[in-house]
Amino acid sequence: MTTDAQVLEHAEFLDSVKFDARGLVTAVVQDAESLEVLMVAWMNREALERTAELGQAVFWSRSRREIWHKGATSGNFIDVEEILVDCDGDTLVLLARPHGPACHTGARTCFFRRLESDLEREQ
Amino acid sequence: MTTDAQVLEHAEFLDSVKFDARGLVTAVVQDAESLEVLMVAWMNREALERTAELGQAVFWSRSRREIWHKGATSGNFIDVEEILVDCDGDTLVLLARPHGPACHTGARTCFFRRLESDLEREQ
Repeated sequence: MTTDAQVLEHAEFLDSVKFDARGLVTAVVQDAESLEVLMVAWMNREALERTAELGQAVFWSRSRREIWHKGATSGNFIDVEEILVDCDGDTLVLLARPHGPACHTGARTCFFRRLESDLEREQ
Repeated sequence: MTTDAQVLEHAEFLDSVKFDARGLVTAVVQDAESLEVLMVAWMNREALERTAELGQAVFWSRSRREIWHKGATSGNFIDVEEILVDCDGDTLVLLARPHGPACHTGARTCFFRRLESDLEREQ
């Protein structure tokens, strides 16, 4: 997807990102081809800078409290094509191409469960 | 989009959602037609239950500390077609149809800025 988003150069982009009290922003990973949302994780400033440098998703693991280069152990790296930031700077969208399943369960996407719709319930 | 996600009935779905220490989960709003990510907001249990009931996005406003029926003041309601939950239950995706701009700036999506790509920088 080539979005019609306004292009910010590196320093300007980093300035637009507002890390929270823990130094984190939410990062939504979206498949650049299918546009499916694959996973949502967290980034601190270092993770964001390494993602931009590497062209692969690097997060902050809140449970392990460390930088997490997604795929470093599983091989399921996520190539990042585009990084978008939202209006108030506290959320990123990564348009990305995963090497394999994005979910640690082996599923293509972490979002593999949904709420039954009203129509389905009434049947 | 009709996803191939596993269908959970109402109580089972609510049980699968893990609210954080503040009682919140992240909610990613995705356009059901274009699949563009429109906005990311937060929900507490009440907001999620009201969203499911109403079929329109209801969030928890962290700044105002109150339930926020999106569109109640602007008219830009967001009809929700499908609610997905991720593997560890701390993030939702809403597949939705917005009545108008999703962003408070008047933009179609909150993600209207992106980082310059390497290719663009080198030109």
